[in-house]
Amino acid sequence: MEVKKIAVMGYGTVGSGVVEVFYKNYASIKRRTGAEMDIKYILDIRDFPGNEYESKFIKDFNIIESDPEVAIVVETIGGIGLAYDFVRRSLLAGKSVVTSNKELVAEKGAELLQIARDKGVMFLFEASVGGGIPIIHPLHQCLAANEIYGVEGILNGTTNYILTKMIREKMSFETALKQAQDLGYAERNPDADVLGHDACRKICILAAIAFGKHVYPKYVSTEGITSVTAEDVEYAAGFGGVIKLIGSTSRREDGRIEIEVSPAFVPSESQLSGVDDVFNGILVRGDATGDVVFYGKGAGKLPTASAVMADVIDAAKGSEGAKNMFWVDTGCDETVPHGEIEHRFYLRLAGAEAAKAAAAMEGAQVLYREKQPDEEAAVITAVVSYDALDALKAQLESSGVKVLANIRVLEN
Amino acid sequence: MEVKKIAVMGYGTVGSGVVEVFYKNYASIKRRTGAEMDIKYILDIRDFPGNEYESKFIKDFNIIESDPEVAIVVETIGGIGLAYDFVRRSLLAGKSVVTSNKELVAEKGAELLQIARDKGVMFLFEASVGGGIPIIHPLHQCLAANEIYGVEGILNGTTNYILTKMIREKMSFETALKQAQDLGYAERNPDADVLGHDACRKICILAAIAFGKHVYPKYVSTEGITSVTAEDVEYAAGFGGVIKLIGSTSRREDGRIEIEVSPAFVPSESQLSGVDDVFNGILVRGDATGDVVFYGKGAGKLPTASAVMADVIDAAKGSEGAKNMFWVDTGCDETVPHGEIEHRFYLRLAGAEAAKAAAAMEGAQVLYREKQPDEEAAVITAVVSYDALDALKAQLESSGVKVLANIRVLEN
Repeated sequence: MEVKKIAVMGYGTVGSGVVEVFYKNYASIKRRTGAEMDIKYILDIRDFPGNEYESKFIKDFNIIESDPEVAIVVETIGGIGLAYDFVRRSLLAGKSVVTSNKELVAEKGAELLQIARDKGVMFLFEASVGGGIPIIHPLHQCLAANEIYGVEGILNGTTNYILTKMIREKMSFETALKQAQDLGYAERNPDADVLGHDACRKICILAAIAFGKHVYPKYVSTEGITSVTAEDVEYAAGFGGVIKLIGSTSRREDGRIEIEVSPAFVPSESQLSGVDDVFNGILVRGDATGDVVFYGKGAGKLPTASAVMADVIDAAKGSEGAKNMFWVDTGCDETVPHGEIEHRFYLRLAGAEAAKAAAAMEGAQVLYREKQPDEEAAVITAVVSYDALDALKAQLESSGVKVLANIRVLEN
Repeated sequence: MEVKKIAVMGYGTVGSGVVEVFYKNYASIKRRTGAEMDIKYILDIRDFPGNEYESKFIKDFNIIESDPEVAIVVETIGGIGLAYDFVRRSLLAGKSVVTSNKELVAEKGAELLQIARDKGVMFLFEASVGGGIPIIHPLHQCLAANEIYGVEGILNGTTNYILTKMIREKMSFETALKQAQDLGYAERNPDADVLGHDACRKICILAAIAFGKHVYPKYVSTEGITSVTAEDVEYAAGFGGVIKLIGSTSRREDGRIEIEVSPAFVPSESQLSGVDDVFNGILVRGDATGDVVFYGKGAGKLPTASAVMADVIDAAKGSEGAKNMFWVDTGCDETVPHGEIEHRFYLRLAGAEAAKAAAAMEGAQVLYREKQPDEEAAVITAVVSYDALDALKAQLESSGVKVLANIRVLEN
């Protein structure tokens, strides 16, 4: 068998992990898969003097693009600037591409999959969602016989770590974020995580695979965890659950897609309620298989690198299954308007009339917490749409009741 | 693309589910995978007058074997009598085989995989473990870049249902078994489930995939749940955990395989502790990916049928990845002798000297339960081998202390 040559673009956390896992486990990879491979180039703008693989480093993408020996390109640069340009050109040059770049897949997936199909190569991205958890492949392939009607998940380890600290140790958001930053779980600029953008990209990718249509992040209502307070966490406990940042999507009968990212009250009966710390959990709902949950480390150097390597092996072997991963860009927004999506909602109210307003709310369940101030109340509403929720909030505000928080309830 | 013709052997729960899922979801299967297929024959010794697919029913396997149009054979007969004969002959006739028959794979997997390889066809068995949970494929393919060093799982839904009832509703084993039988979760002869044989076959299959060597059920120490009592369940709660039937396997540095099936104290921090009712959970430990857990319905008509269908689709597409699933029969027992395996153990003791013996045990942690009788004590021992445990039990018995129960502790 011909030895497949690989180029790794980007030698940061994931890229260096890929090189490490490749050489560490090559013997068993070869034994298990029969694929003969080697890394020919590592592309990075930086110098790595003394690095064990120094002779492989290059700075010019043209070398990769024009080298017919390179069959597989691994992209771990991130973003949609250079990464997009290099991935596109690699595919056009007839090379398969493996990426861990969720932004690239969420923004450009349909286009890049089309180029890959036209060129008869593969564009693979197992590592873009769920780090080391196998989810893209199982969703596409192992569940191929199911109608998938929904996916919901804890897709971001950083925010899950912060929420876990808020729940278990009663930390404030700010203290928990600081600790996550000190431990290297959160970046100095944590916006992509705490504002929900990272989770949004991932649920877009999962929706595209499940439903066959590209869903652009810009169409997805995305709320992060920056407004979640210790009080909300306490009321969630009173409700019998925990607050998690949930990306969720489902398909309606008319073919439109419900999709959103926001904090949610997750009842303790849900398999997602026990997914703590930096772990991710993804629940797939299929008509035949029922609920299936995938759980593991959603990020990190080696887990992500191992997901990249699994794709590299597939690319080297030319797996038919992987070739068939595909979705279309319909050119229009097929999502259900956010205002039409329905949930039960947790509401935290303040003001002299808060308790009375809560008690008077039709179909609502009143919640309690320890040391609850007199002028505070909390309820779980009946099932209403976001539009109806907005009307309810306006009505409460106009009667002098402040709405301090509203968080959806995830149904099991 | 040529239409692939399928023969389904056995029209029981799983077989009829396969036919149902096939026709119900065929449009989306075709859209998603590009595979064109049809079911040509359904083999069963029984008559199904008035059945929608009556014209497809046959009673003679020779028709399938000698029909060159049949490319894929689905085996859902069960057992290793007729099923083994038909599967072997199908493979020898150059047809790919998909099976849900864990006994067949656990007993004859190496041989059948070798025949499939020789004939250039596939032998696939995603449905044999974990029902509708994708586990065989992810373990083989998505985790291909990992060294897998261990797998442990709740692999049998019937026993998990019984244990869940014993834990939540303080039922006795007998009452819970009766209820499981009434609900159709347990068979009238429940031995294969409650004695652990079903879980044993499944952990053998997972070990074979993870470590590349066939592990025969006869070499695996297998203990069921028939001795688990309400008292043990209470002590487990006092320990901070639950009792689950665990099949586990790991590879030692010298290449030998630790493997066993028995009840275990599962600490509540373990992701397996929350796997309740008829659900299955399988934890895979990889060097790069860390711990990954797969969760879902481990049995049932439609989940199992959907796993079969996923394999049928792979067979129809001729997936390279699936082709590479393989393990060898080394011809010798490569398991670690059971007596050498080490754990902490829960011991329940009785007798006038029980409490004193428990308190005197080096490195042990004493457990308590409500309304604990005077002449009863329970401990978690230090880490010892089964051989050492036997010696300890003999020593206790000789000093007049009865050992009523011993159950291993699953470490996280």
